[in-house]
Amino acid sequence: MTPEFKYRKHKFDEGEPLSPWREKIHEVIFEADTFAGKTFDVALIITIFISVLAVMLDSVQVISVQYGSMLFAAEWAFTILFTIEYILRLISVRKPMLYAKSFYGVVDLLSILPTYLTLIIVDAKYFLVIRILRVLRIFRIFKLANYMGEASMMMNALRNSRAKISVFLYTVLMSVVVFGSLVYVIEGPENGFSSIPKSVYWAIVTLTTVGYGDISPQTPVGQFLASCIMILGYGLIAVPTGIYSAEITREAMKKKDVTNNACPSCAYEGHDKDAEFCKKCGAKL
Amino acid sequence: MTPEFKYRKHKFDEGEPLSPWREKIHEVIFEADTFAGKTFDVALIITIFISVLAVMLDSVQVISVQYGSMLFAAEWAFTILFTIEYILRLISVRKPMLYAKSFYGVVDLLSILPTYLTLIIVDAKYFLVIRILRVLRIFRIFKLANYMGEASMMMNALRNSRAKISVFLYTVLMSVVVFGSLVYVIEGPENGFSSIPKSVYWAIVTLTTVGYGDISPQTPVGQFLASCIMILGYGLIAVPTGIYSAEITREAMKKKDVTNNACPSCAYEGHDKDAEFCKKCGAKL
Amino acid sequence: MTPEFKYRKHKFDEGEPLSPWREKIHEVIFEADTFAGKTFDVALIITIFISVLAVMLDSVQVISVQYGSMLFAAEWAFTILFTIEYILRLISVRKPMLYAKSFYGVVDLLSILPTYLTLIIVDAKYFLVIRILRVLRIFRIFKLANYMGEASMMMNALRNSRAKISVFLYTVLMSVVVFGSLVYVIEGPENGFSSIPKSVYWAIVTLTTVGYGDISPQTPVGQFLASCIMILGYGLIAVPTGIYSAEITREAMKKKDVTNNACPSCAYEGHDKDAEFCKKCGAKL
Amino acid sequence: MTPEFKYRKHKFDEGEPLSPWREKIHEVIFEADTFAGKTFDVALIITIFISVLAVMLDSVQVISVQYGSMLFAAEWAFTILFTIEYILRLISVRKPMLYAKSFYGVVDLLSILPTYLTLIIVDAKYFLVIRILRVLRIFRIFKLANYMGEASMMMNALRNSRAKISVFLYTVLMSVVVFGSLVYVIEGPENGFSSIPKSVYWAIVTLTTVGYGDISPQTPVGQFLASCIMILGYGLIAVPTGIYSAEITREAMKKKDVTNNACPSCAYEGHDKDAEFCKKCGAKL
Repeated sequence: MTPEFKYRKHKFDEGEPLSPWREKIHEVIFEADTFAGKTFDVALIITIFISVLAVMLDSVQVISVQYGSMLFAAEWAFTILFTIEYILRLISVRKPMLYAKSFYGVVDLLSILPTYLTLIIVDAKYFLVIRILRVLRIFRIFKLANYMGEASMMMNALRNSRAKISVFLYTVLMSVVVFGSLVYVIEGPENGFSSIPKSVYWAIVTLTTVGYGDISPQTPVGQFLASCIMILGYGLIAVPTGIYSAEITREAMKKKDVTNNACPSCAYEGHDKDAEFCKKCGAKL
Repeated sequence: MTPEFKYRKHKFDEGEPLSPWREKIHEVIFEADTFAGKTFDVALIITIFISVLAVMLDSVQVISVQYGSMLFAAEWAFTILFTIEYILRLISVRKPMLYAKSFYGVVDLLSILPTYLTLIIVDAKYFLVIRILRVLRIFRIFKLANYMGEASMMMNALRNSRAKISVFLYTVLMSVVVFGSLVYVIEGPENGFSSIPKSVYWAIVTLTTVGYGDISPQTPVGQFLASCIMILGYGLIAVPTGIYSAEITREAMKKKDVTNNACPSCAYEGHDKDAEFCKKCGAKL
Repeated sequence: MTPEFKYRKHKFDEGEPLSPWREKIHEVIFEADTFAGKTFDVALIITIFISVLAVMLDSVQVISVQYGSMLFAAEWAFTILFTIEYILRLISVRKPMLYAKSFYGVVDLLSILPTYLTLIIVDAKYFLVIRILRVLRIFRIFKLANYMGEASMMMNALRNSRAKISVFLYTVLMSVVVFGSLVYVIEGPENGFSSIPKSVYWAIVTLTTVGYGDISPQTPVGQFLASCIMILGYGLIAVPTGIYSAEITREAMKKKDVTNNACPSCAYEGHDKDAEFCKKCGAKL
Repeated sequence: MTPEFKYRKHKFDEGEPLSPWREKIHEVIFEADTFAGKTFDVALIITIFISVLAVMLDSVQVISVQYGSMLFAAEWAFTILFTIEYILRLISVRKPMLYAKSFYGVVDLLSILPTYLTLIIVDAKYFLVIRILRVLRIFRIFKLANYMGEASMMMNALRNSRAKISVFLYTVLMSVVVFGSLVYVIEGPENGFSSIPKSVYWAIVTLTTVGYGDISPQTPVGQFLASCIMILGYGLIAVPTGIYSAEITREAMKKKDVTNNACPSCAYEGHDKDAEFCKKCGAKL
């Protein structure tokens, strides 16, 4: 779902040193500590945002008819800009292949490739939508806002509860398969439940409390069963929430409450961060 | 979303002192400690409530036709009342401009302005609805109920988890853009997914488990993808809940984990319950 | 929502003592400690359950036509049974008026009154549905299952977070009024948003993620605003959940972690329940 | 909902010892520690997955018409495979009846029985769907992934909060019965609320925030009541979540708050981290 929020810098600590001008480009493009780096990032995010908006608007019939040529020109302008950026990124890292194969490297490439492909392939409608993946590049905004720590803490909590969430997801999937099949037998094709896959789809719509209403049970037994699924889904939401809450609470407590420094006099550990004296023996920490 | 729950009083500690009668008005209008102040607040809240109800009922065709003139009269009565109140508020504070530019100052002005504007502008339908913002003035009810502490604690927890919630919101927005575009390609205009913005709208309706059902996927692949979005949305709700739960728990514990006893030597407060020595100066507690 | 889960017994400790046979009836009807009391409660709950089912089935056209007379007879049988029970309850308590005016006293009366009223009033359709309130009497099941402690703990947590939940509810109500009015202006009667109250209803349907789809925005601006409400509602659910989670956690911790007994030797408090020696000075507790 | 996650092995510690080759089969089929056991489990899970997919696809008209005979052959192949596996399971345990009557024993039998029944009974459509229960057998995947501990912890938390969840569920059921009946009286059959059971069904659809929209209130009073149910349902979700969060947090903390160090004097484990003396025997830790 969310890409890894690792700080790039450390990845490039190894390898041969870059020449000064490539070092400079690297600083501007990859870092957000200097003024130039920050400005570049802000400009990039705005450009990406506008280019994604352009792709979205291009799909609207009315706009496409009237402003089609303008959007076409804009698209090529963005593509060329992003191509230059991509090449600069490749140049300014010590191991270009490592970048090219990383998550962002692939996304960066996918943002420019489809437009070039339209020159070769005639019906490239499906390729064009890939450009929307540019939106993922905006995740770099967190580097700017210093949200990396928060984001990585949230990812940590997700990772730690991975096993529990798997068990939960599996239970959900089992439930919708069993309930979906049951409702298929009870309601049958005459009430819109035309096949088991479709009934399972309906069970998912119901269990997750989405409830489109395009298919809904008509027989009393079907409605009773649907009620059971709804109440199950209504209660089951407590499970992932409980898991994640506990994990976040644990993660948050670990970080804040206590330092690892032992008292030099009595070796008591677990002092508050702002403690200046040991709370057990009164010695200066 | 919610206006700042700051206690007014402290804002007006500076500036030249008010004359006694303005001091008196200030006490009645801005404070809720005295009997007069409480009575004024209760009366004000009831008046606001009725006036908002009148605006709402006025929009109902049947009622507007029959009781139109009565509602028109009531509206002017309310507007004049609120205007007097507004003027009294301006008079009874030391720095009127500060009040006028504050959140409540603007809301107070917006509650009366639209009615006056109907005298100048003919088609003021849109302006009239602004009067509904009066409803925000009822937030003052919390001052009466002594809920300021609770409200500010909830706001604190929100503020502290701001960064995490931003990351979450951003992930949600990315997801709906990517999924919406995907479904647009898969389902296409013939199934109601007429443009990417509309498909993104559908993805939001699905991910947040609202599920209007005005647009819904018809192809098996589209329904499979929709199922993924639903389960994602169903599970993702755990994230903000976990964040906020942890924050509220932390906020609630902070209050309890710590004693109120000041250090006899350095007067530092906020010692752990099991502390035997002051953690700031090392004196025996 | 839920009636008070107070244990009846204590309410009747005062007043003149009951004669032995009334004491006996009281034991059977009001207590669940003896075998007779338990049997009575189980029988009562089953009877109530069947009688509620009968009322519900009576409203189904097909069943009402075919089994109408049977259901009519059953209803009178239940009513006479419950009347006898009500009289016995009145007899076997020391202060009958106190019982009659209590929550369960009123519910008990409302379960029998409507059937008698049909003898006097001809068109008593609306009165008949009141009989469904019998369902509330089944809450007594918790007395049997010894769930009183759990139930009262949950109520305590609700009561303690009352202030915070009020602030939350108020924010929700403000939001739907403001958003509803906004959408009313944007979409207007031509798209089904015929009045502000109806638009507010739609905003509630959307914010709570119910999403019937009977009214849904048609204009792009309306859909954008709807998206905002959905995401707001999707995130806002974290607030009551966080509040209640923190409260339940606090309530659960209070009970379990720690005894109030001080160490007789060093007076250290906060020992685990199973501690036999002081963990600070090693003295026998 | 979820079957018991007990580790099989311990169940078979008693009874007469198995002969070496049956011991070998037992190891492969029931254990996941050896390479053979792991391989068998992976193969089994894949086979089950494919067979369930086949059952689901068979219900799709288009596929069934074209690939019917192929799916028929596959079904018999799977059935014979699972029959052999079932017999091997029976052979390789010391107490076959105990296995046959266990949860998985019944599911294993239900996965093969329906296909054989089609030889005897002509119209076995309903029996065939029972085969979908094979999906439950995939729960064995958790044995492979070493998720048994996580799963049993989640089940523990559910079990511990059983009483609270019962109270919650009961409150929900009471609410939908009372609200459903109320809306039935207010809206009546002319607006789709044709009977109390159907109105209760609608109340469940609304309270759980599913919101199909197949029935929705039309009168202002009905819409007001519906709004109340929605907001109730929106807020009520906090209750199970809070309960489960607290329970999971407690379960998680239990594990951490305590050290693994045994008392040197009495070998008692489970001391608090800051304990200096054994709380069981008073010895210096």
